[in-house]
Amino acid sequence: MRRFVITGHKAVTSGDFKLDDICGGAGRLDILVRCVNSAFFLSHDIRKDVEIYLVLEGGNDSPKTVRFSGQDIRYLNPDERSTSSLVRNALLKKIREDEEVKSSPGVYVSRMSFEDVISKLSDSGSLVYLKEDGMDCRDYVFPENPVFILGDNKDLTEDEESFLLEKSPDKISLGPHSLHADHCIILIQNEMDRKSG
Amino acid sequence: MRRFVITGHKAVTSGDFKLDDICGGAGRLDILVRCVNSAFFLSHDIRKDVEIYLVLEGGNDSPKTVRFSGQDIRYLNPDERSTSSLVRNALLKKIREDEEVKSSPGVYVSRMSFEDVISKLSDSGSLVYLKEDGMDCRDYVFPENPVFILGDNKDLTEDEESFLLEKSPDKISLGPHSLHADHCIILIQNEMDRKSG
Repeated sequence: MRRFVITGHKAVTSGDFKLDDICGGAGRLDILVRCVNSAFFLSHDIRKDVEIYLVLEGGNDSPKTVRFSGQDIRYLNPDERSTSSLVRNALLKKIREDEEVKSSPGVYVSRMSFEDVISKLSDSGSLVYLKEDGMDCRDYVFPENPVFILGDNKDLTEDEESFLLEKSPDKISLGPHSLHADHCIILIQNEMDRKSG
Repeated sequence: MRRFVITGHKAVTSGDFKLDDICGGAGRLDILVRCVNSAFFLSHDIRKDVEIYLVLEGGNDSPKTVRFSGQDIRYLNPDERSTSSLVRNALLKKIREDEEVKSSPGVYVSRMSFEDVISKLSDSGSLVYLKEDGMDCRDYVFPENPVFILGDNKDLTEDEESFLLEKSPDKISLGPHSLHADHCIILIQNEMDRKSG
């Protein structure tokens, strides 16, 4: 299983945003939904062995985490608007602390924070932090169940990074330039595809 | 200069489509605008040494080609909706045969067909066809002014491919899976970034 965790530092946590305004009013939700596209889509298929956790940290009802699971995902299309609609439907669900609610097939929502997500996933997977001073991904031997951690258009906050670094993640980089999160995911997927034959 | 040519086999050529409907009514324009994002965006910058040609082949007023040029591009944002708006503005321009009209800074529109674009670009650049049976891009020595040719969600038509193959393009592939055009562009950019140091 390949897992991706993306923090949306200003991303909405209520479902009252407009689908025409995902870059503005929805707190750069556009970045997060492009990451969903990058994580799942092959030319004529959807990757089943992938999960992505969108950690939404904006607005009054934060934090919330929307999880997309390739094993049971349905109604996923590559465009930003339709994926934003799946996220909005998830955010309209009533959820209590400590529960994860299914919004639509393969889309789940909870009140997990970044720290909650990292703690949960570090039990079953190996944390891999995307960082410009990390080892070149082409020299890196990927673990069996990697959990890749990326920020949106901002780096992780100091508190988030401290929390993550305490777990001693591997650190990898992808090339000479700093890239958008969704572009990073494409490069990671390709590198893993090549190494897994 | 790095150039990309993408054919949109059903993509609109009139500017009367709705920005809410770029996947449907606009003939999968979503694919083409994601390619624009992939071609130009770095984390905090726009690539100036890039041009992309969107060859629009749908509707009654086809063909048209919308060209984005990194050297003078402005008002370009990473989301699909705003780039679709730039394309729509270009398609609303009145254009005669054999002229290219500036729509906004860095965005140009003409009545060039796929064959016109390929003929023009093969004079000044080296054609590189993205094809699954091509040489692995990691073993490939990129020419100085490559012109990469990709289809949208369909392969090139038989006529287009015949025309292109007569020009004896190099053929490269990107990995073990068939990928979306915008994902391919990310991988090409990264490979060229690595090779150009």
